[in-house]
Amino acid sequence: MKVTKVKSASNSYHVYVGENIRCDLNSYLPKDYSSIFIVTDEIVAKHYLEEIKKSISHKHVYSSVIPYGEKSKNVNTFYQLHTDAIEFGLDRQSLIIALGGGVVGDVAGFVAATYMRGVDFIQMPTTILAHDSSVGGKVAINHEQGKNLIGNFYPPAAVVYDVQTLQTLNDKEIRSGYAELIKEALIQDDAFFQSLLASDLSSLTNDVLANQLNRGIEIKASIVEEDERESGVRKYLNLGHTLGHALESIIGYGVRTHGEMVAIGLLFAIRVSEKVFSIKLPYDQLLQWLNVNAFPIQLTNINKQQVLNRMKLDKKTVNTTIQMVLLKDIAQPVVVEISDEDLLNYLDSFLKEIENNVNLRMGE
Amino acid sequence: MKVTKVKSASNSYHVYVGENIRCDLNSYLPKDYSSIFIVTDEIVAKHYLEEIKKSISHKHVYSSVIPYGEKSKNVNTFYQLHTDAIEFGLDRQSLIIALGGGVVGDVAGFVAATYMRGVDFIQMPTTILAHDSSVGGKVAINHEQGKNLIGNFYPPAAVVYDVQTLQTLNDKEIRSGYAELIKEALIQDDAFFQSLLASDLSSLTNDVLANQLNRGIEIKASIVEEDERESGVRKYLNLGHTLGHALESIIGYGVRTHGEMVAIGLLFAIRVSEKVFSIKLPYDQLLQWLNVNAFPIQLTNINKQQVLNRMKLDKKTVNTTIQMVLLKDIAQPVVVEISDEDLLNYLDSFLKEIENNVNLRMGE
Repeated sequence: MKVTKVKSASNSYHVYVGENIRCDLNSYLPKDYSSIFIVTDEIVAKHYLEEIKKSISHKHVYSSVIPYGEKSKNVNTFYQLHTDAIEFGLDRQSLIIALGGGVVGDVAGFVAATYMRGVDFIQMPTTILAHDSSVGGKVAINHEQGKNLIGNFYPPAAVVYDVQTLQTLNDKEIRSGYAELIKEALIQDDAFFQSLLASDLSSLTNDVLANQLNRGIEIKASIVEEDERESGVRKYLNLGHTLGHALESIIGYGVRTHGEMVAIGLLFAIRVSEKVFSIKLPYDQLLQWLNVNAFPIQLTNINKQQVLNRMKLDKKTVNTTIQMVLLKDIAQPVVVEISDEDLLNYLDSFLKEIENNVNLRMGE
Repeated sequence: MKVTKVKSASNSYHVYVGENIRCDLNSYLPKDYSSIFIVTDEIVAKHYLEEIKKSISHKHVYSSVIPYGEKSKNVNTFYQLHTDAIEFGLDRQSLIIALGGGVVGDVAGFVAATYMRGVDFIQMPTTILAHDSSVGGKVAINHEQGKNLIGNFYPPAAVVYDVQTLQTLNDKEIRSGYAELIKEALIQDDAFFQSLLASDLSSLTNDVLANQLNRGIEIKASIVEEDERESGVRKYLNLGHTLGHALESIIGYGVRTHGEMVAIGLLFAIRVSEKVFSIKLPYDQLLQWLNVNAFPIQLTNINKQQVLNRMKLDKKTVNTTIQMVLLKDIAQPVVVEISDEDLLNYLDSFLKEIENNVNLRMGE
């Protein structure tokens, strides 16, 4: 088992990554709690909820199951979980456990951050993608008009990551998680990036997966320790997300996965970086790897102006000029303001390029 | 003008108390903001919104007006204000101003705490009661099942308190505010308590009011500085609120004011203190002052068991035993666990006593 310590402004917490550690949850609880409330989704519940409830030796263990998917990350689920917490009799010395992927972590974390003005919570990620969202203390729900617009910075009391639970992921979910690993590598570690490009997602071993996950968590932890509230370097983690988030909200949450949209966003960020800094970056290698690993790259009927408007809703904009994370080189991220006009031009040529890629694939 | 500095875990902020300082708001903004969003209620809007908007020399000033009263402190208002903020184009460098009483401060503060995971906000209290809620960083909305159950600890960037705006308060609102001043005096300052009991609320001068307000703010600030997240001494501020909150939710928010209910809660806390510690406290003097100043003390058809159940929803309970703030003497608060049985007995005799008080008043 690997343990990474993360320092936050208000506390420090440990990220435990190991096999079958879900069955020994008692050992990872940082203190005594008056009651424990597990929040999970209907798919994860089927696989793991009962065995995890059994693994906790505590007389007040409760659970709520929310529907699967991004659509649950809304104000109604948030309010309903508060109702559940009240009805289960949770007080300020209670613990909330977020058992699931990023959606469960974000919404249950935001409930923990706001229930009686804050109770402890533990992240138990069950997807690869959630390695990113479970570390760093961002918790949120979506507003109808944009993703993650309502939330807090609220670090967990611990992250308990059982890689065994990743065995039940389908290909789409594996791809989604690897897009964030690629992002972390691009921000900070060229060797890691090369090792990812050498990985075949259809034949990952538990060891390779755990190692790559740990490297991703280390990178994420190092960045959020330096800048918890996103006034500086944490912005780099937004690489690929300016376009990614916009596409997600235009195409519809749940139609494609977050990571699949981020993958397209990474390609776009790399292409814009090449143009802005007149450099050559491994666009082609990344595109090839995405193609080989069956990432869906095609986009149809995307309106550039609509994309731009969505980007402006993104919480990282300042005074309505878009700020994008670009790369001066692998592991050399910078934040750059891009004018609307330039952005529309970049989008135009990128969307055409993507279309050509699809034609190429279809002609293979 | 008087300035009190309040230290919080994350930042320090100033509380400015003075006459007509609302007309010079620019001087009190701690930094430059990309846009300014004023949240107020329909009553305060009529008196002050336009002149305050004019007093801010900034090109992006927006405002939203919520209905008056506790009923606005709910998840729908919270969500609607987020919608407004998004539609006004607020980004992370924006400022929210809470212009109004405790309800506006709590809900607008919670919107500020959660909009894009937190933007700055300034409290501009327009009631005496709000001297208490505007200092200390508690922001919240109510859940249908209890008051302030959803919220954060999120200190303001500044508090700008124009005592001139208190001139438009009615008697009920003045009474409501003075109940919290009485509470603060009981917790920490016997001389202040005596001076309050010597005040006639129907003939307060601006000077007396400002001085008493400042003393209340100093006491509140000293307590929240020592214990921002309510793990220790901050609990003392709950004096009178265990019963007060329960009565508010049973009788209905808005039927009587928060302070009027707290006044009854203070009487109850004093009576229980006398019984638990076998001491004599100034119950009669306080009751007389409340009567003279026309506080509504009568309670009809109150079910003890219902009161107890409501108290258990109060966020200060641990493992479902009620914790009450009691007084070993004036300025000597303590937190004491009270069994359900004892509490029902205390409630029984207190409710009878209150009934006698009403009979006495009616027979006067």
